Amino acid sequence: MVTFIILFNIEKRLINTVAEQLVDIEGISEVYSVSGNFDLVAIARVRSNDELANLVTEELLPIEGITKTQTMLAFKAYSRHDLDAMFAI
Amino acid sequence: MVTFIILFNIEKRLINTVAEQLVDIEGISEVYSVSGNFDLVAIARVRSNDELANLVTEELLPIEGITKTQTMLAFKAYSRHDLDAMFAI
Amino acid sequence: MVTFIILFNIEKRLINTVAEQLVDIEGISEVYSVSGNFDLVAIARVRSNDELANLVTEELLPIEGITKTQTMLAFKAYSRHDLDAMFAI
Amino acid sequence: MVTFIILFNIEKRLINTVAEQLVDIEGISEVYSVSGNFDLVAIARVRSNDELANLVTEELLPIEGITKTQTMLAFKAYSRHDLDAMFAI
Amino acid sequence: MVTFIILFNIEKRLINTVAEQLVDIEGISEVYSVSGNFDLVAIARVRSNDELANLVTEELLPIEGITKTQTMLAFKAYSRHDLDAMFAI
Amino acid sequence: MVTFIILFNIEKRLINTVAEQLVDIEGISEVYSVSGNFDLVAIARVRSNDELANLVTEELLPIEGITKTQTMLAFKAYSRHDLDAMFAI
Amino acid sequence: MVTFIILFNIEKRLINTVAEQLVDIEGISEVYSVSGNFDLVAIARVRSNDELANLVTEELLPIEGITKTQTMLAFKAYSRHDLDAMFAI
Amino acid sequence: MVTFIILFNIEKRLINTVAEQLVDIEGISEVYSVSGNFDLVAIARVRSNDELANLVTEELLPIEGITKTQTMLAFKAYSRHDLDAMFAI
Amino acid sequence: MVTFIILFNIEKRLINTVAEQLVDIEGISEVYSVSGNFDLVAIARVRSNDELANLVTEELLPIEGITKTQTMLAFKAYSRHDLDAMFAI
Amino acid sequence: MVTFIILFNIEKRLINTVAEQLVDIEGISEVYSVSGNFDLVAIARVRSNDELANLVTEELLPIEGITKTQTMLAFKAYSRHDLDAMFAI
Repeated sequence: MVTFIILFNIEKRLINTVAEQLVDIEGISEVYSVSGNFDLVAIARVRSNDELANLVTEELLPIEGITKTQTMLAFKAYSRHDLDAMFAI
Repeated sequence: MVTFIILFNIEKRLINTVAEQLVDIEGISEVYSVSGNFDLVAIARVRSNDELANLVTEELLPIEGITKTQTMLAFKAYSRHDLDAMFAI
Repeated sequence: MVTFIILFNIEKRLINTVAEQLVDIEGISEVYSVSGNFDLVAIARVRSNDELANLVTEELLPIEGITKTQTMLAFKAYSRHDLDAMFAI
Repeated sequence: MVTFIILFNIEKRLINTVAEQLVDIEGISEVYSVSGNFDLVAIARVRSNDELANLVTEELLPIEGITKTQTMLAFKAYSRHDLDAMFAI
Repeated sequence: MVTFIILFNIEKRLINTVAEQLVDIEGISEVYSVSGNFDLVAIARVRSNDELANLVTEELLPIEGITKTQTMLAFKAYSRHDLDAMFAI
Repeated sequence: MVTFIILFNIEKRLINTVAEQLVDIEGISEVYSVSGNFDLVAIARVRSNDELANLVTEELLPIEGITKTQTMLAFKAYSRHDLDAMFAI
Repeated sequence: MVTFIILFNIEKRLINTVAEQLVDIEGISEVYSVSGNFDLVAIARVRSNDELANLVTEELLPIEGITKTQTMLAFKAYSRHDLDAMFAI
Repeated sequence: MVTFIILFNIEKRLINTVAEQLVDIEGISEVYSVSGNFDLVAIARVRSNDELANLVTEELLPIEGITKTQTMLAFKAYSRHDLDAMFAI
Repeated sequence: MVTFIILFNIEKRLINTVAEQLVDIEGISEVYSVSGNFDLVAIARVRSNDELANLVTEELLPIEGITKTQTMLAFKAYSRHDLDAMFAI
Repeated sequence: MVTFIILFNIEKRLINTVAEQLVDIEGISEVYSVSGNFDLVAIARVRSNDELANLVTEELLPIEGITKTQTMLAFKAYSRHDLDAMFAI
């Protein structure tokens, strides 16, 4: 499983709508509306970098209201939970 | 359950050590070493803001090697998973 | 009581109008027009994070003229005044 | 009454100590440790700009651990509360 | 006398026009077109913070062409000149 | 008369001392300690660019505590006051 | 052979299209869609600075959807591969 | 002779056109299209600050396509060449 | 093959030494010293994200003189060359 | 002839010394101490990119007091002067 953390800046009044569209995308496991400099944080858990590439280009970018994204690849996950099992894909 | 997402900048050679110390803290459910502008991203899942306040001041800040943190409160979580159940605290 | 401090950048000529709309929102206890990099600072005192989430999404974001916001959760309040009593909600 | 809002960046492990020193200063009515880009936010309520100038130069600047401050003068306060009465100085 | 120094960014071709409008405002004693990151610097010398608040909201903000302002309150003035006398208001 | 406006960032506890040293320099007509992103603003009124170059290199730069300066040349001054006469050099 | 590395910010939904147009330009040897602050990174391998100047002005700049570019000249290449031979131009 | 160095950001497709218009302006001795964060760098060599002020306001600012400028006054020139003679104005 | 592009800021006088150390690391195919905001750009071509994670933590981070890195994952490569064959790993 | 424009930030009290060392370097034709965000601007006129690479690595980087540099390659020079002849190298 490959995990990506994506930081979003969103047109103010579309934050809710965009969050709901994001979480419907296969591969996006959680979306949070957050305080601070960013508006949304999404966690994508996919099988490969390619799968994320398609997810980003085909499904994520066309969503209306996204003004800026910063995608971070998780090199390594540290957790007391068995994340692979919990988010089995 | 209150979720916080914390972005870290870490002294280069302590990234691994800091990640392992963070994930030992009660309340920190996942830590990822990441590509891009930040070095680590941690997800804290706690019962209340106060619990996070203590976690940050008592346990997180004393960790050697953390140069900058940006703590984001998750107002709302969107997920197909029952996160509360999965990360029951 | 949970306290949030929100920094605003506002379209220049709507600073007054936006300040008056903000202070009418249940949960916003004070709004200041300020010098420096930001235009307005609001202090929200609410019962829970959820209450702020609704306040932000339902009431604050739709206000015309807000170009950027930075919401900061107050982990801990230090004061010689009994703020809870003074701003009893 | 003249209100100032001061944003602080603090050396990580001195956040608590600095907050407690700040709130002891005559004229500082509230101090909050906060999430996001800043570490502390203080609200000063004084009689005049000069009083704040002295507060800043004589009492605030000598405090160990403050790395950066941004002082904002409140031009105008909007509130359902009678702040002058509540914070009578 | 309360002194404010205001840094402006202006729509390129309106720099001259805006400078002439600013200097007509009661309370603005000098305006300079400048090299570097900003376009204009104005020095306001007024009787009180409130007077500046009105000056900013009523007269300054409506001026066409101002894209960004940064208002700085002068806590203390140091000069070999008797500025109060020179700019008696 | 050539006017320069210089923005300073100063080591916190030396703001006062540096202001007093600056205002003693021939050619510096006013120095203000200010709120916001900068700590001091100085206005230099000299006969020529060269005079400022010497002032900066010989007298200003050696002052202890200056961390950053931004010098802005005033192309044109707009004022109801006869600044040349007032600050005759 | 002169190598340039160009960082691109692209209008979100045109990332793919722009990448395909870039790689058709004589002199552009590779284009990558990337995570992080930038959207595309292109590597140009040309015979001279002039050739790149034409490539940039004539072919690259007219491409729809490029919002920002940062061109970096490679002073020196270090590699175990014989890049000149591999990318013989 | 007073020398100014002006850094320009230009609308992508107008870089060439703007460069050619700039170099036609009396007082602008060289214009370079450049790699990196800026698009053009111009060197103006004039008799006085006023001459540059007019050059900037009357001739430079009206040019279509200039999005941002940063004008730097050269306090002192160091060269093995006799620049005054070479660029005699 | 997974490609990463890494932007480096390096202590000035160690640029050459760091470049030579980087290119000795298995997986780093090219390193360029560059003009502009960054000092070095490296292209890593590895079999998996994990392999890069080890490369970064075990070999890259311990190198003396690296002050800042920005690692970008290449989602997709566009090229007229058969990069996989050329850089067969 | 290849022209490079290099922007420098310098330790305050070494501006003069560094300028004099820079202008002694073969290939550096002019150095200016400047107002604004940078401290020095140098113009290098050399025969090839390689010559600049050596100039930067061998002669420029070892100079004490340089804190940051931004090197810009001039793609194209526009001038009424015959710069090649004037700065014949």
